[in-house]
Amino acid sequence: MENLIVQKYGGTSVGSVERIKKVAKRIVERADEGKKMVVVVSAMGKQTDHLVEMAKSINPNPPSRELDVLMATGEQESIALLAMAIQALGHSVISLTGAQCGIKTSEVHKKARIEGIDTSRLQREIATHQVVIVAGFQGVDDREEVTTLGRGGSDTSAVALAAALKAESCEIYTDVDGVYDADPRIVPDAKKIDEISYQEVLEMASLGAGVLHTRSVELAEKYKLPLVVRSSFNDNPGTLIKEEVNRMEKVLIRGIALDEDIAKISILEVPDKPGIAFRLFSSLASQNIHVDMIVQNVNRTAVNDISFTVNVDELQKAVEVSQKFAFDVGAQKVEFDQGVAKLSIVGTGIVANADIASQFFEALYELGINILTISTSEIKISCLIDKERAKEAMVHIHKKFEM
Amino acid sequence: MENLIVQKYGGTSVGSVERIKKVAKRIVERADEGKKMVVVVSAMGKQTDHLVEMAKSINPNPPSRELDVLMATGEQESIALLAMAIQALGHSVISLTGAQCGIKTSEVHKKARIEGIDTSRLQREIATHQVVIVAGFQGVDDREEVTTLGRGGSDTSAVALAAALKAESCEIYTDVDGVYDADPRIVPDAKKIDEISYQEVLEMASLGAGVLHTRSVELAEKYKLPLVVRSSFNDNPGTLIKEEVNRMEKVLIRGIALDEDIAKISILEVPDKPGIAFRLFSSLASQNIHVDMIVQNVNRTAVNDISFTVNVDELQKAVEVSQKFAFDVGAQKVEFDQGVAKLSIVGTGIVANADIASQFFEALYELGINILTISTSEIKISCLIDKERAKEAMVHIHKKFEM
Repeated sequence: MENLIVQKYGGTSVGSVERIKKVAKRIVERADEGKKMVVVVSAMGKQTDHLVEMAKSINPNPPSRELDVLMATGEQESIALLAMAIQALGHSVISLTGAQCGIKTSEVHKKARIEGIDTSRLQREIATHQVVIVAGFQGVDDREEVTTLGRGGSDTSAVALAAALKAESCEIYTDVDGVYDADPRIVPDAKKIDEISYQEVLEMASLGAGVLHTRSVELAEKYKLPLVVRSSFNDNPGTLIKEEVNRMEKVLIRGIALDEDIAKISILEVPDKPGIAFRLFSSLASQNIHVDMIVQNVNRTAVNDISFTVNVDELQKAVEVSQKFAFDVGAQKVEFDQGVAKLSIVGTGIVANADIASQFFEALYELGINILTISTSEIKISCLIDKERAKEAMVHIHKKFEM
Repeated sequence: MENLIVQKYGGTSVGSVERIKKVAKRIVERADEGKKMVVVVSAMGKQTDHLVEMAKSINPNPPSRELDVLMATGEQESIALLAMAIQALGHSVISLTGAQCGIKTSEVHKKARIEGIDTSRLQREIATHQVVIVAGFQGVDDREEVTTLGRGGSDTSAVALAAALKAESCEIYTDVDGVYDADPRIVPDAKKIDEISYQEVLEMASLGAGVLHTRSVELAEKYKLPLVVRSSFNDNPGTLIKEEVNRMEKVLIRGIALDEDIAKISILEVPDKPGIAFRLFSSLASQNIHVDMIVQNVNRTAVNDISFTVNVDELQKAVEVSQKFAFDVGAQKVEFDQGVAKLSIVGTGIVANADIASQFFEALYELGINILTISTSEIKISCLIDKERAKEAMVHIHKKFEM
């Protein structure tokens, strides 16, 4: 649809009555430029956390279906309030819940996937209202049951709507100015990136650099939908995420990412039999445990040490699986270490450029930091290092690469 | 449906996590007796007020449609939490929003009327769950728009569901023990009524004795559905509201009601022309102003004084209409008085029994209280008196009639 803008405002952006009024003003200014606006909003500030907390005080293990019914009230509250604020500014507006705007999801609670959008009502409302406010993070399944989309859900709602409506652009408003080349809370010299490719930002996100969830970026890439990440607190231009960014052959490090929420598990003295690693990792996969950096150290004897990293949230479950595995195959013991962090550099063509990798390792050497594990992909290099020294390393590398 | 109980818990009954847990226990105990349970709940405590306040701070005159979207989150929150609490007690339970349980209303926001209930999903859920929790106060119109039912909405939801499902009984849980023969906050000797007829309780309600809203009682009467009003804070038996209560000929005063939220408007020296009163009251009706006690004093001259009472909420609008009327017809002036109250006695056959009326007036005379206006119906006598002495009069009459 020509002239249609999809915007998304996160929880911080609509965190109070005052902030809702400011967001309304921002939306209306854009509408006054002659744009049709579809605006996706999250629940106010910490409302979702508050609801979940209340649920857990009633039932430590609340049924997912009811948790979705409960959580969905958060966005329903913010869409109504934002619509009221826009109406107060004299603009024609209507709010739609996930169900009302036709977001159809899989029959899974708490982490449903969007399966399609029936845009018929949405199209009708766009035709008759200047602004349509949509509840992010939620939808309904085939049985008209309320579902929620899990982490990064509202971003995903926005991108899916923009794709379904063939919007001119999709703007994600948040509490930071855009995507940075390193976490500004750690690296004071961190710089905002003006343009970045889907692939690069996906690596950044999966490596721990927040801002956008991978789901929404993957969806945007699939539909070649340009995404803009901006702050709702100022008028800075933000970061444009699109297909391949033209950089005239020069390989650039786009960013440095640090993931401190990981832990390393080691299974010592695993008998060296064919298929034994497969058996371990398929057990972990069957428990939905995402395994990251894997190292297998072959010893002199007929036994191996197998190490891998997992997210700290999954550590306990992963240790249990590993212990069962160790017992079954007759391995010596299972150790785990939460004192590690994963530091990564990201940029298209980075791995093909040996110079960049060696500079990365050199930087760590200069600080006397030991590299525990290395893993690489087309566009990133990651090192597992001592968590206590990770921030210092990040700052040093940012400086060394003159970012 | 045999063996089916519909219960309704008001906002105070589910006002906190602790109270929700207690209500869950009460429901489960009943289910354990082998009953099928459909439970209607209101929003937690002051949640609706809180939401409306937030809305007004964003838009002093929020659009009704969006206000309904906002307010409906209140019950959606409490149904999910109550379902979680019941599941924690090991019972099979599901929550349904107004839309999900098929409550179809008129296309009016903030004060929709229930037009019908499509019980197909409800029947299915009752068949597979011990307890079905339903959001009170809300429904959807033909366009799938969220509507709310206005004052007394959750009671009305409960009665409508009980009628549609042909429930064994409908129990309204509140923060008082039942219907009293006078307001216990004013009359310390006030007694709980064990049984009362629909008509009597309707008069009590319309005369200012809270507890139940007239809508739900009217609906219960229409379907001859027995209603029980009980406290959710104890196990007292409450008040049973049903058809004609057998009282062996003895006329009884069922209750005394006091309405202090009224005001009297007088239009002085209205020229005495045919149809002039009609013109005034049709203007008031067209503004949705409910007029109560009307007195027209014919003076010696060719002018009348017309007095009537309205609810204080509608006083300002009513005065405006009256002033316009006075100007148009050449009346002398408009006066209003907020220092009045309406004291009523209610009981089937009360008016036919002259003795009771005279005792009522005598009681006021004994206190030296002037009667400003009298109005009667088949089952009630109301007197307009000085507001400052109304409570004292109520206590005295309660004693005089040995209630």
